[in-house]
Amino acid sequence: MKNAISPSRMENFSEWYQQVISQSELAENSGVRGCMVIRPWGYGIWEQIQRELDKKFKDTGHTNAYFPLLIPLSFLQKEAEHVNGFAKECAVVTHHRLEQSSEGKLTPAGELEEPLIIRPTSETVIGASFSRWVQSYRDLPLLINQWANVLRWEMRPRIFLRTSEFLWQEGHTAHASCEEALAETLLMLDIYERFAVDHLAIPVIKGEKCSWERFPGAVSTYTIEAMMQDGKALQAGTSHFLGQNFAEAADIRFVNREGVKELAWTTSWGVSTRLIGAMIMTHGDDNGLVIPPLVAPTQIIIIPIVRSEQNAEAIHAYCEILKKNISRKKLKGQNLRVTIDKRDMSSSEKKWYHIKRGVPIRVEIGIKELEQNTVSYSHRDNINNTLTVETTRFIKDASKTLQTIQTGMLERAQKRLSDNIETVTTLTNFKKAFNRQGKPNTFVMAPFIDDITIEQAISELGVTVRCIPLVQPKTAVPCLFTGQPTKCWALYAKSY
Amino acid sequence: MKNAISPSRMENFSEWYQQVISQSELAENSGVRGCMVIRPWGYGIWEQIQRELDKKFKDTGHTNAYFPLLIPLSFLQKEAEHVNGFAKECAVVTHHRLEQSSEGKLTPAGELEEPLIIRPTSETVIGASFSRWVQSYRDLPLLINQWANVLRWEMRPRIFLRTSEFLWQEGHTAHASCEEALAETLLMLDIYERFAVDHLAIPVIKGEKCSWERFPGAVSTYTIEAMMQDGKALQAGTSHFLGQNFAEAADIRFVNREGVKELAWTTSWGVSTRLIGAMIMTHGDDNGLVIPPLVAPTQIIIIPIVRSEQNAEAIHAYCEILKKNISRKKLKGQNLRVTIDKRDMSSSEKKWYHIKRGVPIRVEIGIKELEQNTVSYSHRDNINNTLTVETTRFIKDASKTLQTIQTGMLERAQKRLSDNIETVTTLTNFKKAFNRQGKPNTFVMAPFIDDITIEQAISELGVTVRCIPLVQPKTAVPCLFTGQPTKCWALYAKSY
Repeated sequence: MKNAISPSRMENFSEWYQQVISQSELAENSGVRGCMVIRPWGYGIWEQIQRELDKKFKDTGHTNAYFPLLIPLSFLQKEAEHVNGFAKECAVVTHHRLEQSSEGKLTPAGELEEPLIIRPTSETVIGASFSRWVQSYRDLPLLINQWANVLRWEMRPRIFLRTSEFLWQEGHTAHASCEEALAETLLMLDIYERFAVDHLAIPVIKGEKCSWERFPGAVSTYTIEAMMQDGKALQAGTSHFLGQNFAEAADIRFVNREGVKELAWTTSWGVSTRLIGAMIMTHGDDNGLVIPPLVAPTQIIIIPIVRSEQNAEAIHAYCEILKKNISRKKLKGQNLRVTIDKRDMSSSEKKWYHIKRGVPIRVEIGIKELEQNTVSYSHRDNINNTLTVETTRFIKDASKTLQTIQTGMLERAQKRLSDNIETVTTLTNFKKAFNRQGKPNTFVMAPFIDDITIEQAISELGVTVRCIPLVQPKTAVPCLFTGQPTKCWALYAKSY
Repeated sequence: MKNAISPSRMENFSEWYQQVISQSELAENSGVRGCMVIRPWGYGIWEQIQRELDKKFKDTGHTNAYFPLLIPLSFLQKEAEHVNGFAKECAVVTHHRLEQSSEGKLTPAGELEEPLIIRPTSETVIGASFSRWVQSYRDLPLLINQWANVLRWEMRPRIFLRTSEFLWQEGHTAHASCEEALAETLLMLDIYERFAVDHLAIPVIKGEKCSWERFPGAVSTYTIEAMMQDGKALQAGTSHFLGQNFAEAADIRFVNREGVKELAWTTSWGVSTRLIGAMIMTHGDDNGLVIPPLVAPTQIIIIPIVRSEQNAEAIHAYCEILKKNISRKKLKGQNLRVTIDKRDMSSSEKKWYHIKRGVPIRVEIGIKELEQNTVSYSHRDNINNTLTVETTRFIKDASKTLQTIQTGMLERAQKRLSDNIETVTTLTNFKKAFNRQGKPNTFVMAPFIDDITIEQAISELGVTVRCIPLVQPKTAVPCLFTGQPTKCWALYAKSY
């Protein structure tokens, strides 16, 4: 049978990715360079992601706030490494109005005294508020999160993965001690891991970034790394321990219990709409998107199959009752999300429309189902297997079925990950692992020492250090590139 | 007794407003001109507003999406009135990176071929997507909403009321017929009215804007106008019937049932963080903010009163059980929002902290309440009246009590509005109505004809035409300014 998406993943993974996004109506490129439009289906997934993460943040004591989009250059300049890290990709606002010439051409006017940049991230502008809010140890910890758009000018944009503008959340916290800030950094990393695994069905490897992959200005950066179906790595979320660097830059000081003024310790952490890209490349197949049930805007789509106008009303009424009864059921505390596709369109068109969009369960209700009081349905991850069961049974099992689909997706992704990690102890094998013609890429665990000369050596192979995993092998092996003794192993991979 | 906010509303309403915002920790000015920081308490109110409006939008068939922050000049220029309306307040991005000079000074670099503006509103960029999405009558109606930040450069910024950057929702819809688009425009106006009245306890007057107060590019603009405690009007939400103007500009065309290509009809509508300003100025008193229970981030604050360490544990345990039991109760489908203030601070400090923040019910639990199994509490709108009731009774009545507070707030605001509208039929009385030394301003209903010369005449009195109310008096009176016969009455007021 012909697949809905061409090319297939095997033929051209990158083009397949674009086609899935376009045909599932997740998002599209806009007329604005590097900026995407997130269409309702894509935004619906983002809303599910937001809802769950927001709950996890609030359950751990964080509250939301909102800070300015525009940052004065003077703020950005306060942390030297930070400004160097972002200067090359800042959108700069220089004027505050437009003038129309006599020929009707618009030109910028009203030049600003100090240019403003659109936030690429908000440490500096949030730091300015924190320095006002934090006076005493009683004001700590200060646990803030912001849902916002940010902008980093991208030379080679790629929808959901690297767009100039993207949506994200950025957590920013201040603490009275180093230990507490470090614990917060790791707690948020754990929350990201749990969310990726439990909700997106994406297994991840937690670890610390090496020095040259750190967030500009951070003392240490932690990451969750996921494996896409082409064997490349995707950084899916990061959590930064900022030490006292940003507190010093923004003057965040507090009077401690002994009455002495101290610098605070800060963290920041974020995930973005990139998670949708990770979801597509982890679960999609040659028929389009496959959405994990827990984040699907519609979990069950009901398609009425009306071949004669005579039965139309009865079939539609049957669908409505079915929808109502399923919607009452819950999964992880949320009512099931069910939709009836009533559009004026052939049922075959509808079927493929929802397959490409990755709806977890597709129900078809025709005259036979009506007469026999049954439901015919397929799971998105096995579209050719249509099952028919009694309606009451289907309703009763709906939540469980969705959970089973969710678990199955995670297990397949976990197997793919564990099947495709190699441990390598020689340079020859390292090179071989990244040069297998016609086969998917792999993740490689190899010894590591934090020496910038390694970056040069591996970048020639198109490889990056993804992280130093928190879970480490016990043995010690010399560095493959420098021969120096090492104390840890790193995860190496080609990456997005 | 001394009040918590100085100056009082009577002494200086404008300064009182700033003080309430500052002392309730709702928001603050940032180091970025015209841009505010929305602090957790202010953002918490915005989250309640968002949740309820989002539900109302979805219940009426709208879905959320996200469109680019940056708009090319060429997009903006497509609708002539529109660009004229916004050209004077656009933030313009002209460069895409920063360069550091040898002295370390940062300067804009990488000049863009075409400048980009930060969206002041998104009709033009959303129109470009709509023209791709709408092909056939089957694609209509297209009902989209966006939650976003927008930027309009403000020369005289005022926190929540007129800030350069603000948060809002903007609905954008396309329809197959004029009638349907007009019905949508009015439906959304009704939704705004219901929300203002039922949730913010703010009565509003619905009406149409006169020609010179219309949204740039719209055929007609509808508004809800609210009265602040100083008698000034605040435009609290608008809904625009755009006719085919933007469809023409963006080329939004569809093939109708007869196979003929037609231009679509569009609408747009929005409310913003300005609603928080409206709430402050409608309900606040000389002790600070008074938040309507339905949008309060915390509806009931529990303050443990511990005078001896001996009872501390028992009192805290009692508070926890109380919180747990109240949290199970529901108001309008939502669990009650209850918090215990456990901070290391005197109970008097805590009391005033929560009064200034406008928490609807303040509960105090000390040894007496513990021993007698009672709850002592005050309503925010009557802080000196402390009541003591049995705990089970308090829990049982909590939802009803909050609803009573909500209703009371609305009734007071409704009375103030109806007590302060004057009907005026002569120019002398018109002028008198707006020139009462030492008294609050009033709203004036007077005859109206849509003639721009009126604007000049009334602006000298500091007055604007707020709207032509949908509900009209039956009599017809000549225009006070031009003597022309009129067919309707308008609402005139001083305004924010």
